[in-house]
Amino acid sequence: MLYIIGLGLADERDISTRGLEIVRKAERVYLEAYTAVLLCDKEQLEAFYGREVIIADREMVESQSDDILANADTVDVAFLVVGDPFSATTHTDFVLRCRQNDPPIPTRTLPNASILTAVGATGLSLYNFGQTVSMVFFTDEWRPDSFYDRVAENVKLGLHTLVLLDIKVKEPDLKAMARGKIIYEPPRFMTVAQCASQMVEVEEGTEEKEGRKEDVCGREKLAIGVARLGSEGEQIVAGTLEELMEADLGKPLHSLVLCGKTMHEMEWEFARGYAVDQEKFDRIWKRDYAGKS
Amino acid sequence: MLYIIGLGLADERDISTRGLEIVRKAERVYLEAYTAVLLCDKEQLEAFYGREVIIADREMVESQSDDILANADTVDVAFLVVGDPFSATTHTDFVLRCRQNDPPIPTRTLPNASILTAVGATGLSLYNFGQTVSMVFFTDEWRPDSFYDRVAENVKLGLHTLVLLDIKVKEPDLKAMARGKIIYEPPRFMTVAQCASQMVEVEEGTEEKEGRKEDVCGREKLAIGVARLGSEGEQIVAGTLEELMEADLGKPLHSLVLCGKTMHEMEWEFARGYAVDQEKFDRIWKRDYAGKS
Repeated sequence: MLYIIGLGLADERDISTRGLEIVRKAERVYLEAYTAVLLCDKEQLEAFYGREVIIADREMVESQSDDILANADTVDVAFLVVGDPFSATTHTDFVLRCRQNDPPIPTRTLPNASILTAVGATGLSLYNFGQTVSMVFFTDEWRPDSFYDRVAENVKLGLHTLVLLDIKVKEPDLKAMARGKIIYEPPRFMTVAQCASQMVEVEEGTEEKEGRKEDVCGREKLAIGVARLGSEGEQIVAGTLEELMEADLGKPLHSLVLCGKTMHEMEWEFARGYAVDQEKFDRIWKRDYAGKS
Repeated sequence: MLYIIGLGLADERDISTRGLEIVRKAERVYLEAYTAVLLCDKEQLEAFYGREVIIADREMVESQSDDILANADTVDVAFLVVGDPFSATTHTDFVLRCRQNDPPIPTRTLPNASILTAVGATGLSLYNFGQTVSMVFFTDEWRPDSFYDRVAENVKLGLHTLVLLDIKVKEPDLKAMARGKIIYEPPRFMTVAQCASQMVEVEEGTEEKEGRKEDVCGREKLAIGVARLGSEGEQIVAGTLEELMEADLGKPLHSLVLCGKTMHEMEWEFARGYAVDQEKFDRIWKRDYAGKS
């Protein structure tokens, strides 16, 4: 049996008690380590689980999945995933491979906390969220604005948008590669401030590129930044996108929510507790949001 | 400190190891028991946690919250919530009351699995879901179709819709109440088949009421029913809404996903493994979904 086990969001203790039982008994234990990261390191996991944990990077999952699945039709293999197992499509793909294996490998998935619902800690109702979008790091050559269309769809319906922020783990250093060396860049995690800046850039435009200017994510839109949700050090900051461009939410992982016009009174009352500038937050909410959807 | 602890979806073992530590040390332990239910009973929880668990029904949470919060500024109180704590707005309200208490009561929330992400077990990508809707039990007098508007918004964008199904726990028997007695009706849980029937009824209409007929949830739309997700006995059935009207997914809790046109090849490949009639599922997907968004 292949057990795909969600680890939750913060550290080694967010695994479910059932998940821990399985990990302790499994023949091999892998940790998927490229679509998300925990706030603790591998050694902490190993100490708490009492097991050796094998790091499975993208390359291993995508091209050496046979090693991971070896004899999983007869022994138990645990594949640990940060957050909820199905929050990334890679894992759907993995289950498909098990089904298509000869003989088929039975799988069981243990769900756990995901940023997609933990974001309810902002006070925004999960019923008022539209599609989730991803934001990638802009580079000099590549500043994709496709996220804007999906956010705009949510905005038109008055819905909130959860924006998941890029992480770069074990990215090859392209310059070193050109010299024939394989060197990995240090891990990078997008911050709330970077995300807010990229959103405003796409709205307003730059000298090189015309802005979209559809009133989707301008400077005065209300948004909420979150960091390390579910952990003891979780942090939530509410404000305009302009304010969030200056916000420092500390260590990763960060996410951002762009508030929709449906933001009703109780959501506002809860979120304003996190405002950078409460007077401004209230004024903009009353002017542009309250009862405006 | 008030700890609001998500219990996950299936039974007593889905609590996180951190949550279990807190429960074992807390002064009092409450279980919120009206917005969702676990698949195990209170005695199982108490045996595994080694603690007495006080059932908090709607009345208690809404009108006797002072009892729950009594001296929580100085001792630890655990408030257990099935699924993820913020999946129901009642809990946001509860945290607000703690903040406004004099003195304020510190709170900490431990996220856990929610149906909102566990539904990824269908193979549908969580990025392709729009707003989540609720479906209430229709009665002779009350057959609200407001869900239809929100589903239609998702359908127009090609997005999937998760439909959460009504549960009735500790509902007063109105006839007995008229005779001055307080008797509670036995708990009821909506099935996938009931939900599919109600959706098709609103699409097509009845003798009494005109149908909406906007091609949102007719008989030939593809949908996926899920039951007891995250438990060992989880069940997933894919088919047309007409097929799901006849599907028996057994014991609660059930949910339903209406598939959107964005349903891409990998989602289809995964979901067809659960089809009532695979040939029909494939035919309709190719005719109405594949590449049609």
